[in-house]
Amino acid sequence: MQGLFITIEGPEGAGKSTILQKLANEMEERKFDVVLTREPGGIQISEQIRQVILDPKHTAMDSRTEALLYAAARRQHLIEKVVPALERGAIVLCDRFIDSSLAYQGYARGLGIDEIFTINQFAIQDLMPDKTLYFDVEPEVGLKRIEKHRGREINRLDLEKLDFHYRVREGYKTLLNMFPDRIVEIDASQSFEAVYTHAKRLVEELIAKKDKIGH
Amino acid sequence: MQGLFITIEGPEGAGKSTILQKLANEMEERKFDVVLTREPGGIQISEQIRQVILDPKHTAMDSRTEALLYAAARRQHLIEKVVPALERGAIVLCDRFIDSSLAYQGYARGLGIDEIFTINQFAIQDLMPDKTLYFDVEPEVGLKRIEKHRGREINRLDLEKLDFHYRVREGYKTLLNMFPDRIVEIDASQSFEAVYTHAKRLVEELIAKKDKIGH
Repeated sequence: MQGLFITIEGPEGAGKSTILQKLANEMEERKFDVVLTREPGGIQISEQIRQVILDPKHTAMDSRTEALLYAAARRQHLIEKVVPALERGAIVLCDRFIDSSLAYQGYARGLGIDEIFTINQFAIQDLMPDKTLYFDVEPEVGLKRIEKHRGREINRLDLEKLDFHYRVREGYKTLLNMFPDRIVEIDASQSFEAVYTHAKRLVEELIAKKDKIGH
Repeated sequence: MQGLFITIEGPEGAGKSTILQKLANEMEERKFDVVLTREPGGIQISEQIRQVILDPKHTAMDSRTEALLYAAARRQHLIEKVVPALERGAIVLCDRFIDSSLAYQGYARGLGIDEIFTINQFAIQDLMPDKTLYFDVEPEVGLKRIEKHRGREINRLDLEKLDFHYRVREGYKTLLNMFPDRIVEIDASQSFEAVYTHAKRLVEELIAKKDKIGH
């Protein structure tokens, strides 16, 4: 496969989407063929699957049903959007991918990283990212950033979820140990400029290593 | 798990649903707690997943996406309907289950029986049927029965599909070898009465072996 497949992981409030947008803009200015996406990514089938997952009436949804639906939506987004972009040599920047399922459902919800990996491996067939940037931030810091952005106070529910967010972070740390060559940790508690500079340097290094990136 | 979990497999036109309905009626008359079901079985989440699978606009649906969606719908139907019935000791008669995915998608569509088994194992967590009745019939015979029922002639499309139905049958035969203790073959080319008598005898033997079937 040509192209460059980069995924970005980490909790809400880590600044992923802002950094990604700026990265994509910069790469486009430098005339690279860049695809910035996130699941379900406007793929109709994946959007419909996501509606089933998010339907508030579906309180009875089992966590394994949910995991299979996420894997199905991932598959379709990969086949319809990511693979064609990589095949023409594009840089694909994908906000969340397999590691989100592994950290949130596999680790934090206790379904097991190996089990979630297995169904996702069926979905992605070894098409793992070339590199994954993990934006690490203390759950409290992420929460405060969300508070600032959404303009509301942290409530009891947010605090109850803190424990869950700590488990998600532990999940990501476990993945860092499992995939030391693929996943790179970025300290996302730093200033926006520092985080951006780190992320940009990593992407530039990856581009330099690949000689078939499309312009 | 108490109860008795029986699945029925085989192609369209093998007479599965008619036999099943009569079996369920007979068992109910004998005051057994019987649940006759088939996926998605009226389970709202599974019905919605099925709508995504069957939506005629979704011509771009990848076969792996479809397999994951079937597994997701199976999981939810199992958790919401089959497991509660088995827990109260009921006889569950389920028209198609994991073996349909293994025969149709794993074998006939070439995704691989082992791979389809793996994602379904995630969905069912070892809750395999106590017994599976496989209704075997030559594809041509099944096709003629469908023709008779639907009151239309066999067309070119049906004949083109014959090859696929032969592969499905090969898939089921492969499963018979893989699971000789669980799957029982019934010659569904016989008369309705002969097929019904065979199926009823098998179910009665299963009930006799279990001592906690609910009435």
